Amino acid sequence: MYKIVISFFLFISPVLLKANDGYKLWLQYLPFENIAVADYYRDYLENITLLGNSPTHEVIRKELGISITGFFEGRTTPNISSDNTNSGLIWIAKAEDLPESFRNLLGERLNEINDEGYLIKYIQGKILVTSNSDFGLLYGTFALLKNIQTRGKLEGLDILENPKIKLRLLNHWDNLNRTVERGYAGFSIWNWHRLPHHIDQQYIDYARANASIGINGASVTNVNANALVLTPEYLEKAAALADAFRPYGIKIYLTARFNAPMMLDNLPTADPLDPRVQAWWKKKAEEIYSYIPDFGGFLVKADSEGQPGPHNYSRTQADGANTLADAVKPYGGIVMWRAFVYNEKTPTDRIKQAYDEFKPLDGKFRDNVIVQVKNGPLDFQPRELFHPLFGAMPNTPLMMEFQVTKEYLGQESHWVNLASMWEEILQSDTYAKGKGSTVSKVLDGSLHQYNLTGMAGVSNIGTDRNWTGHHTGQADWYAFGKLAWNPESNVGEITEDWLKMTFSNDPDFVNSAKNISLKSYETLVNYMTPLGLHHIMARSHHWGPGPWVTGGGRDDWTATYYHRADKNAIGFDRTENGSNALGQYAPEWKKVWGDPETTPLEFLLWFHRVSWNQKLSTGNTLWDEMAMRYQQGVEGARWMANEWAKLEGKIDQERYSHISSFLNIQVKEAEWWRDSCLLYFGQFSGRPLPKGVEKPKHDLEYYLNFKRNFVPGI
Amino acid sequence: MYKIVISFFLFISPVLLKANDGYKLWLQYLPFENIAVADYYRDYLENITLLGNSPTHEVIRKELGISITGFFEGRTTPNISSDNTNSGLIWIAKAEDLPESFRNLLGERLNEINDEGYLIKYIQGKILVTSNSDFGLLYGTFALLKNIQTRGKLEGLDILENPKIKLRLLNHWDNLNRTVERGYAGFSIWNWHRLPHHIDQQYIDYARANASIGINGASVTNVNANALVLTPEYLEKAAALADAFRPYGIKIYLTARFNAPMMLDNLPTADPLDPRVQAWWKKKAEEIYSYIPDFGGFLVKADSEGQPGPHNYSRTQADGANTLADAVKPYGGIVMWRAFVYNEKTPTDRIKQAYDEFKPLDGKFRDNVIVQVKNGPLDFQPRELFHPLFGAMPNTPLMMEFQVTKEYLGQESHWVNLASMWEEILQSDTYAKGKGSTVSKVLDGSLHQYNLTGMAGVSNIGTDRNWTGHHTGQADWYAFGKLAWNPESNVGEITEDWLKMTFSNDPDFVNSAKNISLKSYETLVNYMTPLGLHHIMARSHHWGPGPWVTGGGRDDWTATYYHRADKNAIGFDRTENGSNALGQYAPEWKKVWGDPETTPLEFLLWFHRVSWNQKLSTGNTLWDEMAMRYQQGVEGARWMANEWAKLEGKIDQERYSHISSFLNIQVKEAEWWRDSCLLYFGQFSGRPLPKGVEKPKHDLEYYLNFKRNFVPGI
Repeated sequence: MYKIVISFFLFISPVLLKANDGYKLWLQYLPFENIAVADYYRDYLENITLLGNSPTHEVIRKELGISITGFFEGRTTPNISSDNTNSGLIWIAKAEDLPESFRNLLGERLNEINDEGYLIKYIQGKILVTSNSDFGLLYGTFALLKNIQTRGKLEGLDILENPKIKLRLLNHWDNLNRTVERGYAGFSIWNWHRLPHHIDQQYIDYARANASIGINGASVTNVNANALVLTPEYLEKAAALADAFRPYGIKIYLTARFNAPMMLDNLPTADPLDPRVQAWWKKKAEEIYSYIPDFGGFLVKADSEGQPGPHNYSRTQADGANTLADAVKPYGGIVMWRAFVYNEKTPTDRIKQAYDEFKPLDGKFRDNVIVQVKNGPLDFQPRELFHPLFGAMPNTPLMMEFQVTKEYLGQESHWVNLASMWEEILQSDTYAKGKGSTVSKVLDGSLHQYNLTGMAGVSNIGTDRNWTGHHTGQADWYAFGKLAWNPESNVGEITEDWLKMTFSNDPDFVNSAKNISLKSYETLVNYMTPLGLHHIMARSHHWGPGPWVTGGGRDDWTATYYHRADKNAIGFDRTENGSNALGQYAPEWKKVWGDPETTPLEFLLWFHRVSWNQKLSTGNTLWDEMAMRYQQGVEGARWMANEWAKLEGKIDQERYSHISSFLNIQVKEAEWWRDSCLLYFGQFSGRPLPKGVEKPKHDLEYYLNFKRNFVPGI
Repeated sequence: MYKIVISFFLFISPVLLKANDGYKLWLQYLPFENIAVADYYRDYLENITLLGNSPTHEVIRKELGISITGFFEGRTTPNISSDNTNSGLIWIAKAEDLPESFRNLLGERLNEINDEGYLIKYIQGKILVTSNSDFGLLYGTFALLKNIQTRGKLEGLDILENPKIKLRLLNHWDNLNRTVERGYAGFSIWNWHRLPHHIDQQYIDYARANASIGINGASVTNVNANALVLTPEYLEKAAALADAFRPYGIKIYLTARFNAPMMLDNLPTADPLDPRVQAWWKKKAEEIYSYIPDFGGFLVKADSEGQPGPHNYSRTQADGANTLADAVKPYGGIVMWRAFVYNEKTPTDRIKQAYDEFKPLDGKFRDNVIVQVKNGPLDFQPRELFHPLFGAMPNTPLMMEFQVTKEYLGQESHWVNLASMWEEILQSDTYAKGKGSTVSKVLDGSLHQYNLTGMAGVSNIGTDRNWTGHHTGQADWYAFGKLAWNPESNVGEITEDWLKMTFSNDPDFVNSAKNISLKSYETLVNYMTPLGLHHIMARSHHWGPGPWVTGGGRDDWTATYYHRADKNAIGFDRTENGSNALGQYAPEWKKVWGDPETTPLEFLLWFHRVSWNQKLSTGNTLWDEMAMRYQQGVEGARWMANEWAKLEGKIDQERYSHISSFLNIQVKEAEWWRDSCLLYFGQFSGRPLPKGVEKPKHDLEYYLNFKRNFVPGI
């Protein structure tokens, strides 16, 4: 007996040794690190009262069981009472289910909780978690668990949270054959072949993870859509997913191929104003709702990159959206209509086209349509300005589309904290109603009183054992949920919470890893696209550098279209003298960005054509500054790898090594970017590399000929 | 303290509650079920001496750590001494590293151990695990751990094992884009894009699992080969895999596309007798070995289903194989040349063609060629006779190709214990040298004194979290390894060991689950292809029934070519009066199978055309017997599901539910097979269903029109 008790006290080291493939995400519920910590939480966790009965209550009960088993390593049996005379120390119940004495104690605060919100309040030695809805209660439970996971104090807790945005969705660009467009973490987790008969545990864990960060919807199929998903064969399968997700508060959305009436039922047209087409969508909606009574609605990519759309019939985007919106309206469904519309035949600067097309349609959409706008006007580049539509559509609700998957950011093997980028966008000021009219306020509806609000994240999830390829891709998923719930959330706090829940509460680890994470975004921009460069990646798969990409039929898909480098200068003039994309922004910005002297260096070449030997505010010429930033990026990546190496032994070896291995790839690829871009642009600048910038490892020829087969994600 | 100690004693229930996705396969190292069991093994496991230093010793050390952590749930720290004066109770060391006193005690027995074999011997209160090689020691360690996992006694252990077969390989039909031909467990686990820089933990766990069952080679790419895998880009990646696998005794093999000299280097021909082609292969081999010094060799599919081969140049299969064999010979490499050669233009019965082509070439292959023959002459049907080449090639080594993935057996969602089928094949008598000339003896080389021996299994592994889709697919992987090590292994024991190591030692569970497993094969044959029916599945994806498949350009890929049903009769006459495929077997078999009266009912329609109202030995007409067998199959599947349902609570809920869910699919699909086949064949027989056979749920039209998109595995 002596031996057993002793070894029990050594229980930290096995945790570090244990295999951990990261599948549990931020819901690791890691064991309490010592007896004191365990004892602090024990009394509370062993005395829980959960009132009410619904499938969501069952989910709450299970989650408490999983977490308590984790915290105490199975050494205590979760005992959750459903008796409202119980002397529980944690009470979890909707307001209407609480004993009146508690309701009276909470008083007015109860009225501040909205549909999906919750209140956690420490009162008279007990912790109350309450809400107006089942889902609010689930969110509250996860919030309490997060508090424990991050080792927060329980006494004095007083948290009232309401989501600031209504539609908080993941967009999966998953094809029915399970490939994932721009997916770098393996293949689609949706096994359509086994559906509807087999509901995999992974679907449940997916729903748990999403619910834990407040995500309440999932569009499960690619925006480059296959109409088959609207047939009974697939509706039955989608319904099975919807059933599995329902208790977690997650609605299913499907992508609608605009010409589905033609593809599925041989209609002669998909013209949105043709009564046969309108009738077809109405019937289709009726059919869908017979399978999925709470179907969320459609997500549509039209008139873009080969997808059919209203243009084919000389109709507007509003005509298209409204026809689908009318069909789902009777059932409470919505349409998310993407603003990512552009065409190589339009002679205008590509980044201007969405604004030109949608701005005149402001106010012409049905009230159950929301226009989904990418964060920037080009396409998920490492750094872009905010999209000029934000602030420009006061009468049409706009929702944000962020890309959680890293199409242009090194794909899955680079550590880059996307929340840093998203924060930059969300805090950008549109000046739509004067100073302080941030993108964040457009999105939460407060600026224009939108009736619908939303944020979508293009998912980075796949069949990889850790879901996201890079373990830190989980942080992006997590942060997306948190920012969708509240776009004003602090990114530092999000990062810190995620690290604690996912890896360890060891402050040395948390501080160092947080530091790496928060520096990762700027580092990546430096080694990929410093000074406002954009769209200089390899063709088609978008992995690695390709500043030399030119020709091939679509100028707007080449690098030279965007950087326009020649012997004298580099950059795209988007001022009044050029494409005047600048004209789509507020006057306040025109002043700043209209002049290269006042344009922040991060956006210099986005707006201006600048000569190679132009002196910049840093005192360096443009060429020297560019070279030095590429070098800084490489050094930043090396620094990340070195800092991480110091953390060995502080977390489990399996995830430590995995991240190390990916950081080594990141350093190599940062060098690849630097060397190939500087060799390529150096041809034009004709200038030597400044001091401190390493000589490229190979000649330009080598990089031009570097070709890899079967790059994933296409 | 009281509370902690108490709850420690309850440690079984958390194991049942814990999430278990099956990733750990049969290397679960489940916690000891009670203190008595733990105490019995504790003294041994806490006193281990491991002598010697090599990467494989490091692997052994880690495996001991993992297993001990598992057995004791991290409550004891593995302490493994490398000091040969230690008083360890378990000694693990190669014979040459053992102290002389131990060597003297073992005496003559040491000489009985071959290169890869091992001896486990209890002697003077200690357990000795010894071998002549590092890999033998690894196999011995896994054998000892298996003994503990299955709760065997340690005192008195005396196990001497040498593998009976030299080449024990998995064949992965994995494409470079990560799709898997005939793969039903997701996608390829080989992430070529991340190689060579990232070695995933899954590769290591793959190697551990294989080593634990004696597999010593892996051909990692599809036999429908892409020549790119022979380029430096991919050789560098394959080399990284080889490096990862090496300490586990697993060699890498690659599939060679026969016209690679043309595809990669624009040679005008791939004629195996052309000196330029021969020089090309020699240079290619030199290149490959510069990347992978212990490269195993090539696996080749030629002149089959669209693959190029020696036929294109009017050369023989021996000509083709020998050219490649000469290239790898200087490095110790081999060529595995597949006998699966057939052609729709050859007018002969498809199942005769491989024998006709290869038999005359007996003795014409180089000594580093081994011909790889599928278990049966058609193509991995639910039930086939053994291939007539076995026993017919005394001067050319033959190796077995079994299909671990279940292309024709319901794919991943049916529980069918493939070892039952394999045992039937291995124990079949070829009569090549009189009675007792079993396929097993052909394979182990004892019948014809082959210098090379081998067994290959077409892998069922994919990205699914449990590796194999169905949890019981792991049993097929496990059993394949065990039978490759020793084709005389007892299938009942294999099944029982696997159940214990994978799920639980609870005898109620083990007995019931074993019973289900051992009945599963006959059940499946009954609901799919009773009475010798074959190749009656759906076109192309081979999922589900398709007895109506006809036309389409290749008769030998249709169902009607094989069953030939009409109003009078059904079956393929392969006697002397028909195709005389029978003539390829020994005279002893011609007597038995030449007469429908003496042909076992399992092979009746394989050899004979039989009229619908022919009375069989069972007393039933052919039609009634067929219908009743389909019904029996369905009832068998239902019985399996019911028996399994009784086991809830005896193992972890996650895997219990997963298997339940798949069993429900199996029952549905068994009904689908029965209903559609009986409706289809009933058209010809014109007879009513006999009593006890349920009426089909739908009409034939329904089944004919049943179509599913994106069936996996193509």
